[in-house]
Amino acid sequence: MTDSSKPGWRSRLVALVEHPVFLNFITGLILFNAVTLGLETYPLDAAWFDIALPVVDAVIVTVFVIELLLKMIAYGPRFFRSGWNWFDVVVVGVSLFPDAGAFTVLRALRILRVFRLFSVMPEMRKVVEALMRAIPGMGAIIAVLGLTFYVSAVMATKLFGASNPDLFGSLGGSAFTLFQVMTLEGWAMEVARPVMAEISFAWIFFLVFIVLTSFAILNLFIAVIVDSLQSKHFDDEEERGEKEAAEAHAERAELRAALSDLRAEIAALRGEVAQGMRSASASKARDSDA
Amino acid sequence: MTDSSKPGWRSRLVALVEHPVFLNFITGLILFNAVTLGLETYPLDAAWFDIALPVVDAVIVTVFVIELLLKMIAYGPRFFRSGWNWFDVVVVGVSLFPDAGAFTVLRALRILRVFRLFSVMPEMRKVVEALMRAIPGMGAIIAVLGLTFYVSAVMATKLFGASNPDLFGSLGGSAFTLFQVMTLEGWAMEVARPVMAEISFAWIFFLVFIVLTSFAILNLFIAVIVDSLQSKHFDDEEERGEKEAAEAHAERAELRAALSDLRAEIAALRGEVAQGMRSASASKARDSDA
Amino acid sequence: MTDSSKPGWRSRLVALVEHPVFLNFITGLILFNAVTLGLETYPLDAAWFDIALPVVDAVIVTVFVIELLLKMIAYGPRFFRSGWNWFDVVVVGVSLFPDAGAFTVLRALRILRVFRLFSVMPEMRKVVEALMRAIPGMGAIIAVLGLTFYVSAVMATKLFGASNPDLFGSLGGSAFTLFQVMTLEGWAMEVARPVMAEISFAWIFFLVFIVLTSFAILNLFIAVIVDSLQSKHFDDEEERGEKEAAEAHAERAELRAALSDLRAEIAALRGEVAQGMRSASASKARDSDA
Amino acid sequence: MTDSSKPGWRSRLVALVEHPVFLNFITGLILFNAVTLGLETYPLDAAWFDIALPVVDAVIVTVFVIELLLKMIAYGPRFFRSGWNWFDVVVVGVSLFPDAGAFTVLRALRILRVFRLFSVMPEMRKVVEALMRAIPGMGAIIAVLGLTFYVSAVMATKLFGASNPDLFGSLGGSAFTLFQVMTLEGWAMEVARPVMAEISFAWIFFLVFIVLTSFAILNLFIAVIVDSLQSKHFDDEEERGEKEAAEAHAERAELRAALSDLRAEIAALRGEVAQGMRSASASKARDSDA
Repeated sequence: MTDSSKPGWRSRLVALVEHPVFLNFITGLILFNAVTLGLETYPLDAAWFDIALPVVDAVIVTVFVIELLLKMIAYGPRFFRSGWNWFDVVVVGVSLFPDAGAFTVLRALRILRVFRLFSVMPEMRKVVEALMRAIPGMGAIIAVLGLTFYVSAVMATKLFGASNPDLFGSLGGSAFTLFQVMTLEGWAMEVARPVMAEISFAWIFFLVFIVLTSFAILNLFIAVIVDSLQSKHFDDEEERGEKEAAEAHAERAELRAALSDLRAEIAALRGEVAQGMRSASASKARDSDA
Repeated sequence: MTDSSKPGWRSRLVALVEHPVFLNFITGLILFNAVTLGLETYPLDAAWFDIALPVVDAVIVTVFVIELLLKMIAYGPRFFRSGWNWFDVVVVGVSLFPDAGAFTVLRALRILRVFRLFSVMPEMRKVVEALMRAIPGMGAIIAVLGLTFYVSAVMATKLFGASNPDLFGSLGGSAFTLFQVMTLEGWAMEVARPVMAEISFAWIFFLVFIVLTSFAILNLFIAVIVDSLQSKHFDDEEERGEKEAAEAHAERAELRAALSDLRAEIAALRGEVAQGMRSASASKARDSDA
Repeated sequence: MTDSSKPGWRSRLVALVEHPVFLNFITGLILFNAVTLGLETYPLDAAWFDIALPVVDAVIVTVFVIELLLKMIAYGPRFFRSGWNWFDVVVVGVSLFPDAGAFTVLRALRILRVFRLFSVMPEMRKVVEALMRAIPGMGAIIAVLGLTFYVSAVMATKLFGASNPDLFGSLGGSAFTLFQVMTLEGWAMEVARPVMAEISFAWIFFLVFIVLTSFAILNLFIAVIVDSLQSKHFDDEEERGEKEAAEAHAERAELRAALSDLRAEIAALRGEVAQGMRSASASKARDSDA
Repeated sequence: MTDSSKPGWRSRLVALVEHPVFLNFITGLILFNAVTLGLETYPLDAAWFDIALPVVDAVIVTVFVIELLLKMIAYGPRFFRSGWNWFDVVVVGVSLFPDAGAFTVLRALRILRVFRLFSVMPEMRKVVEALMRAIPGMGAIIAVLGLTFYVSAVMATKLFGASNPDLFGSLGGSAFTLFQVMTLEGWAMEVARPVMAEISFAWIFFLVFIVLTSFAILNLFIAVIVDSLQSKHFDDEEERGEKEAAEAHAERAELRAALSDLRAEIAALRGEVAQGMRSASASKARDSDA
């Protein structure tokens, strides 16, 4: 608006990147890319395939980079205000690292690009945003759970680290083993029993840990359920209840107004009757005088 | 109705296939078939049994085929509008394949016929239909979960395929292993730890995967719970609330009508009083004149 | 009441078996018995202990038998109308079998006597009865789940029985293995993978089975949750809502009555005014005539 | 207040221990202590570190002891009325035991000090208190579950103790194994199947136990969910509903008052009219008399 020389091409660029055909093209390209990245996992004998796939991938990345650059130019600084755009930039940016040395693991992360579907398809976007909205409500319980984990990991390392170094040899290893115990995977046969063979009272630790974390996780779930129930249903009902109450209130106000009208009417009637009486008495008096 | 020449036998056929005795006979036959198909799994020494069971099965299948043909004739094209009828046709049709070669596995599918109980018993039909109604509400989350699975499978194949070919050797194998990890079965001892022995940072992948899929599954559950709560209870309550509000509204309208009647009454009274006053004044005036 | 000859001792017997001291004595005896039965599991060296415990147990059983006989006499046929009494009779009756031969396993069932606490303590009785009330609501889903289990067990026996006889060798064995798969215990590493090594498409069976049964179990849970929510909370709220609606209705009826009183008052006034007018006119007329 | 000689320094002490800077300092010290206690689990080569860490720990413990003494003096007997203060005293007290002999295990418990974060941070305190409030509602079900566990443990020890001493050799061992079975960890492959190899009917025991405990746990969860739903949402709604009902009630009372005013008005009018009529008749009569 302030930049009066180029509003034309800028709004035309916005119209382009928001055009349904453009969006469908990008969505289709992401899906096609999902297939080509999946194909790379198959040991294909055809030599032309080994050459074609990287070329196709390079082309697709180039298109994505151009798309994001167009959006950056079109929206300007506004572009970086959306978390989804940051997501797109990071996920596409990962593919630009050279395919060698320390970055070799990044090649496997190229498939994350397919998650761009979440950002380009409004239905999926809504689901992901709904899932994310549930997170703040869980914050406090996650903090309590995290602290419990840290304390338990330190304690387990000190208590069982010497006797069972495979499971509880280091703080990180203990944390992993405790996460495993929390998911109840092999906690008894492959964690608690071997430890109890060395340190007999260890069952207290595992029992308390399982009961506490299960209880915390249960409350995490409940927090999400309650949240979800409230946002989905109860708001509707509350709204309906409030609308009904407001309606009833308005109708009662109307009744009150009608009553006060009636009162005015009666007051007027009373005045008229009184006046009539007075004038009748007066005329009578005049009659008598006459 | 349009086909005036044969309404007689057609509606009589509908009456037959919908007759309680016919339905009970079919239900009984399905249950009897369930038993005979179960008996086939026992290694029975009696030679006559080995001959009798296939004969019984052939007879039952013939009866089912006749039943379905009767229904098809009775209902005409309407027959194929019900999903349950399609289900019956497929499940009975499976038994008609020859028992040899590539179709040998289909013999094991003959037991699916017992699921016809779901279609012939109204109580079970209702339960299955209720379970199915919950599915559309889960659609979007299933899509998100499915995409997460695909991306994770491609990534796991690329990252761990070389070091742990048994678990992550191919895209399909990785998907199966990740399904196993999602159910938390042996995820640590038999999947994550062997992989971490080769690639130490693998714990990040498994941790993120378990947290994400657990959270998605939790939200899937919540979607079903919320749906179920709404359809079972809240509709009732909402209905009750609306009925009450409507009643209160009607009663208030009645009050308003009574008030307006009252007002009319007072207006009439006021008119009469005013007229009385006027006539009194007039007579007075005439009196004075007289 | 009809039996006029012995109301005295019968009602006195009822008073005895319902006396708090008697109830507390039985409750204490059950708890003491729980301890003695627990002690029997310890390999005690003291010879006197090996003799004492069976004697103590025999005494306690005798007391229980006398208690139940007293109740039977006190309540008469009414005694057998309560499920809890049947439970007590069965659980105490188990201890009366001779301790030998085929009945040796019944000795282990003597500990079931401790469950009599559920029947004698009102708090626990309430919890157990609440748990039982949830069962009918689950009936239809349990039927669907049961049929799914039977069909899956037959199918699995036919498909995998030959290659994996340990897991799926018989119908009963298959049912047990499938129950294990439903609980997700070792389903992949110790059931599905060994089977898939023989029959590669087996993953379809396990995937479908796990998804279907998990979904059914989830709906079972939801049925209980919905039931519990309704019986615990919503009834209260509904009651409250209905009470409020009834109050509002009564208040509005009162308003209507007040309005109709007012109307009668005004009608009376109107009549008086009209009469006054008429008499005034009449006197006027008489005045004029005069 | 009664102790008039030293209100000055006592309330100043309260102001000190409740001062935000003091609280932040203690919170920071707990976090710092969490790090130093974590560092102790790493095998550090640097000699100065091995000396520094115990010194740092001793200093922190001293500060905590002084802090708690200050609070005790400041609050007096009130100090011991809060469960959180007891928690702080126990958790800090554990660190004061000598580091030798039978107390060596207490060294590992020093990390429990980090849980003091729960008592000093109001947000975490609230979460923990909310979790604790859910416990009384579960009491009855926990009692039922506990009794079921005891009875099952005694029964399992008697039935399977001889054949599988590793799993069910003693009452304590059986209880642990049953807890493992309840969590479904390796219940089939590593508990039920080995037992069934000896005692074929054992599957009945495990099936019944798993179904019963799962059902009890489910109801435990539901108790917490229902509780949480009620305290979080329904109270709000109930309050809102009651406020609305009270408002409606007040408005209807106002209407009734307006109606009764109206009635008084009309009664007055009626009196005036009647008086007017009477005086008119009287004057008429006087007229006639005149």
